[in-house]
Amino acid sequence: MLRNLQAIVLAAGKSTPFNTDKTKLVEKICGQEMILYTTRLLESLCMPTTVVVGHQKELVQEVITKKHGDKVHFVTQEEQHGTAHAILCARDSFNEEHILIMNGDMPLVSGEIIEKLYTKHMSTNSTVSFIVAHNDDPSGRFYGRVVQQENNKIMIVEAKEFNGDFNDHCFINAGIYIVTKSFLQANIDEIEKDETSKQFYFTDIIKIASDQNQPITTIQAPFDRIRGINNFQELWAAEHIKRSELIKYWMDHGVRFSVAQNVHIDLDVTIGSGTYIGCGVHIQRGSSLGKNCFVHEFSAIENSTLADSVTIYSHCIVKDTHIGSYAKVGPFAHITENTTIQAHAVVGNFVEVKRSVIGAYSKAKHLTYLGDADIGANVNIGAGTITCNHDGKNKHTTTIKDGAYIGSNNTLVAPVTIDENAFTAAGSTITSFVPKDALAIGRARQINKDGYAAKLRTGKQEQEDASFIGAVKTNKDTKLSEGT
Amino acid sequence: MLRNLQAIVLAAGKSTPFNTDKTKLVEKICGQEMILYTTRLLESLCMPTTVVVGHQKELVQEVITKKHGDKVHFVTQEEQHGTAHAILCARDSFNEEHILIMNGDMPLVSGEIIEKLYTKHMSTNSTVSFIVAHNDDPSGRFYGRVVQQENNKIMIVEAKEFNGDFNDHCFINAGIYIVTKSFLQANIDEIEKDETSKQFYFTDIIKIASDQNQPITTIQAPFDRIRGINNFQELWAAEHIKRSELIKYWMDHGVRFSVAQNVHIDLDVTIGSGTYIGCGVHIQRGSSLGKNCFVHEFSAIENSTLADSVTIYSHCIVKDTHIGSYAKVGPFAHITENTTIQAHAVVGNFVEVKRSVIGAYSKAKHLTYLGDADIGANVNIGAGTITCNHDGKNKHTTTIKDGAYIGSNNTLVAPVTIDENAFTAAGSTITSFVPKDALAIGRARQINKDGYAAKLRTGKQEQEDASFIGAVKTNKDTKLSEGT
Amino acid sequence: MLRNLQAIVLAAGKSTPFNTDKTKLVEKICGQEMILYTTRLLESLCMPTTVVVGHQKELVQEVITKKHGDKVHFVTQEEQHGTAHAILCARDSFNEEHILIMNGDMPLVSGEIIEKLYTKHMSTNSTVSFIVAHNDDPSGRFYGRVVQQENNKIMIVEAKEFNGDFNDHCFINAGIYIVTKSFLQANIDEIEKDETSKQFYFTDIIKIASDQNQPITTIQAPFDRIRGINNFQELWAAEHIKRSELIKYWMDHGVRFSVAQNVHIDLDVTIGSGTYIGCGVHIQRGSSLGKNCFVHEFSAIENSTLADSVTIYSHCIVKDTHIGSYAKVGPFAHITENTTIQAHAVVGNFVEVKRSVIGAYSKAKHLTYLGDADIGANVNIGAGTITCNHDGKNKHTTTIKDGAYIGSNNTLVAPVTIDENAFTAAGSTITSFVPKDALAIGRARQINKDGYAAKLRTGKQEQEDASFIGAVKTNKDTKLSEGT
Repeated sequence: MLRNLQAIVLAAGKSTPFNTDKTKLVEKICGQEMILYTTRLLESLCMPTTVVVGHQKELVQEVITKKHGDKVHFVTQEEQHGTAHAILCARDSFNEEHILIMNGDMPLVSGEIIEKLYTKHMSTNSTVSFIVAHNDDPSGRFYGRVVQQENNKIMIVEAKEFNGDFNDHCFINAGIYIVTKSFLQANIDEIEKDETSKQFYFTDIIKIASDQNQPITTIQAPFDRIRGINNFQELWAAEHIKRSELIKYWMDHGVRFSVAQNVHIDLDVTIGSGTYIGCGVHIQRGSSLGKNCFVHEFSAIENSTLADSVTIYSHCIVKDTHIGSYAKVGPFAHITENTTIQAHAVVGNFVEVKRSVIGAYSKAKHLTYLGDADIGANVNIGAGTITCNHDGKNKHTTTIKDGAYIGSNNTLVAPVTIDENAFTAAGSTITSFVPKDALAIGRARQINKDGYAAKLRTGKQEQEDASFIGAVKTNKDTKLSEGT
Repeated sequence: MLRNLQAIVLAAGKSTPFNTDKTKLVEKICGQEMILYTTRLLESLCMPTTVVVGHQKELVQEVITKKHGDKVHFVTQEEQHGTAHAILCARDSFNEEHILIMNGDMPLVSGEIIEKLYTKHMSTNSTVSFIVAHNDDPSGRFYGRVVQQENNKIMIVEAKEFNGDFNDHCFINAGIYIVTKSFLQANIDEIEKDETSKQFYFTDIIKIASDQNQPITTIQAPFDRIRGINNFQELWAAEHIKRSELIKYWMDHGVRFSVAQNVHIDLDVTIGSGTYIGCGVHIQRGSSLGKNCFVHEFSAIENSTLADSVTIYSHCIVKDTHIGSYAKVGPFAHITENTTIQAHAVVGNFVEVKRSVIGAYSKAKHLTYLGDADIGANVNIGAGTITCNHDGKNKHTTTIKDGAYIGSNNTLVAPVTIDENAFTAAGSTITSFVPKDALAIGRARQINKDGYAAKLRTGKQEQEDASFIGAVKTNKDTKLSEGT
Repeated sequence: MLRNLQAIVLAAGKSTPFNTDKTKLVEKICGQEMILYTTRLLESLCMPTTVVVGHQKELVQEVITKKHGDKVHFVTQEEQHGTAHAILCARDSFNEEHILIMNGDMPLVSGEIIEKLYTKHMSTNSTVSFIVAHNDDPSGRFYGRVVQQENNKIMIVEAKEFNGDFNDHCFINAGIYIVTKSFLQANIDEIEKDETSKQFYFTDIIKIASDQNQPITTIQAPFDRIRGINNFQELWAAEHIKRSELIKYWMDHGVRFSVAQNVHIDLDVTIGSGTYIGCGVHIQRGSSLGKNCFVHEFSAIENSTLADSVTIYSHCIVKDTHIGSYAKVGPFAHITENTTIQAHAVVGNFVEVKRSVIGAYSKAKHLTYLGDADIGANVNIGAGTITCNHDGKNKHTTTIKDGAYIGSNNTLVAPVTIDENAFTAAGSTITSFVPKDALAIGRARQINKDGYAAKLRTGKQEQEDASFIGAVKTNKDTKLSEGT
């Protein structure tokens, strides 16, 4: 804990260079909104935090409040007149002796950097302390430059105003300061409007302190840690850095990534050791994977838990689902909406499972739709089975009990129950209860019309109305409507 | 416009190092054939253009003519005896006072570079002007080296003949020249056959001009701009550069790319601001995406238009299709061949749609094949529905009118119409017209055989012919054939 | 062949930094277990090879024996007391005059490097020769450093013991030595236990030889060639290098890769010239692709052969399968388990084929499951067709002869045969033989209930039990069970 220190986060500005309608602060980086990187960092340092909001403030506040409840304090900057004006808006919340000021678009800053700044600030008894980074290339073009003047005074020149050489002034201002409350209160009003931009720049505080011969100190941080996110290219770079860190972390914890540079993982996932992650896999929204799992190429796992030794074959989507140990899923499976796949169960290709439970050792291997299904253990679902869970108005449950065997290409009209160890014949439409150990059949018997295919093929003119596929459609068929 | 300047493009050579049967000039880079990068560049500079073709000239001419009509002039180099010989073949088309000569395999050259060369050529009143690039590494091993001789003469040594040190001769010849017509006409014949390769190299023109003390000038361009494509590794590098440029361009226009390094986009696509492009997405062949769309990972969009706020979930293929605003597609959907998905419609997983219209607010969510279907608004297509659009010879249309509800696992035998607000029962085969507000049923009723499943399971020997799935197949079934 | 030289490979250690339960030596790199890179290298150099195994020795021996039969000799190091102790365990197998010693975790070492070491060892008549590499960055932190002492003696300091500056001691010990048998036998016992780690380090042999003024020589190799694999990050790096080499190799042989950095190919695959490999494609386990094939994005081919001019559309999985020329597969197809797709056949989207043959020019284009199917030529399989190959106990064959036409949404209950040129009507369940030229129908006729849909929609209370989709389910249905 950093004593006598509070934080003011600047989060009111427009994100003009993003060219979208949405504030950049809620763009996600590895699954977490940009602004939360800052607020969670400050929380981890136990720092009382005030966020200055303005542009799309409802959106920003909603994201923060969802994470932090009422622990973060907000002040509003109604009109955006620059960083100094934003801090002025937060004046009433200056409570601690020292005030940390930082932007809300710096997701890669670490606690160590803030602690180092604080420690130096305190040990040097400085009035203003701030972070600089070495940068002499175009990636620093949006940053204020630290300029040491001839009279030994120090100042920061805003990016737009700077027209010197990056090599001569190779330190940029990161935009993270600690200022003593007394100095801040006494001088925040002194900052003057920049004539060109009509903005009040907080960076002027350095010049003011320097002119007053106040003690000023800096610490240096790597540019990649303090980089702000000013457009989508920089967002991509920051996410790439973050993602690489996460992947390295999990590699060191026993996770094998096959083509690591193509994988996307979120900040808040966990992966057990011995697990294999294939090319292009996405692991997102707090998913938790057990040990010795396999997740093959191009599969995505969202907000789901996998027990140990689960196999997800390639091209699967698993969302809001729990999968038990040794279960096998895919390829080409789509499992969603609060589904449970129990241990050793098998869900195969072109199968969708939604709001269902599939019991242990049960199988649904091919071209199947299971919605609102409650399926016991050791059940076999034939290829092409469809649960009709929707009657046009409501959803109904299909219940299939332990040991039942559903023949291929069945249509199961819910609500319906197939009892233990019952069978249904291939091609059946099942509309009502099937008792334990019974066989249910709901299909027509096959009839062969000898030579008919050859006739259809050759004598087409005689059979104008006959469809080849429809086959039994004749002229009579057009009169088959009857009243009810 | 560059006055008094015409272009000769060399496009006659074999692409031997590619090791394929096909000329490299029609290999695509970001969706556009390599040769068109050159011809379109020259067109944008309003330059009369002659292309010297030879190897696979039909293929090269076809590609160019498809784009430029008859605006590009061709001459044929029947046998390939080197670049000087190729230019000699084009002699009859020398019309303008200055002649730009360049290769057809340089897709990254920009208009600015050509303009700069022209401007310097004119302002220095040079006889020959050409482009050089700094390169001292193996990526330059296929290029002629610019060699300044002791007598202050300048010459170009062909890559194969060069055996000096790249560091001493660190400028390569890009292969782009402007030569005055008079000098070219007077000297093109003077170039002698290289004894080793039996080729006539146009690069000798520099030595000839130098020997005649003609004014020669050069401009320098970045190697990455003038790199030629001599094999598949270089093709990959050039496409990577081009693709990165395109992605950066769209980032700056408000498009978010999640794992940008894995995305493929073509030259001629457009993407609205606020749109999100997931990992591995392909956007190709002139596709146009509206604002605020989502295209999730591993989906491909080809020759299609998406209105605003469309969502394409992961693993979809959308080809030759129009999708209306707020429609949702996928995951695992395949939509092709002149299909229209109207606003707010939903196409779900494992669904194929082909040559069809799906009306506004209609839904086809699971395991469905819709081919040649004309579907109105507010229609619901049950899971597992199949349109039988093919009768073995012809395709027929399935028409489903507004508000109709197709039960699950239906077989719709086209040509057939289901009228407004009609229903079809789950598991039905529909072969003929269903009137407005009617219910159509085409399936057998379910029968339960109590205890039969248990018998089948235990007393298998008594029921040798009975298939577990087939269930009602008995010995009688084998005699069921009947004449027609 | 390197005369009088044998190899000892150290493969007994634990892979602690991997943090998994499995020895790193069987982790695959481009489809081949790490240890086999070393044993196959030595085999290619015709060197008698002894592998010292220990940790998980059964696993390591199994992998080696599967590849090399009994050609590789094993000795066991029961407890792991360091590299010198491992070599001591192999003492009885010292047969040749010179002994090559190397680690089993160096998959990128080439034959040229070993040959160079051998040649220098012999020509300098050295007692000990070893390989060094220049490395002054953290990637070298796991390697022993070569230290030249003041008295001109040379020694290797183990990574853990080294606390000098990488820049001052910028050569690492690769861990590959050639030692004369006589010297090794006389001195291997002399190596003392390291006090800190309680290990016997073979690296001490250098100091011993140096102290005895024995001739010692070194050769230098690039770090990327001799890098060992100490954790998953290094495994990833090594595989990335290997993969890039393979892709470059195939590029030079006429294969076009569209987004090469995302492709995964195994060591043992072959690809014909003129073939196109899309983004994210996986080609694995000895697959062989013909000329002029197209494999589109996100498809995977494992242990399969493709003849010339095959097209695999995107999102396909092809495993243990042979595909004939001009066949077209996918998108979204899954073909496995010893299947043959003959020339010009078409397998379409959401289709699974398993243990089947599909004859020439036959088509199965949509939403189909074919298991244990024997399908002739020119057959058409309608959309939604399911073979019921499993009766709950056994698998049965579906036989479909030349020219047959299976209507859409058919259920084919195996064992069953559909004879030549026969047809089946859409929506049928086929349970028994269909004769040549016959038409088989197995479905109910459609009935329309006029106005019933409107009633269902509005007067729901009267029809409590009626399911919208089930449609004909009435109260009676609940009593339909009957005894058998």
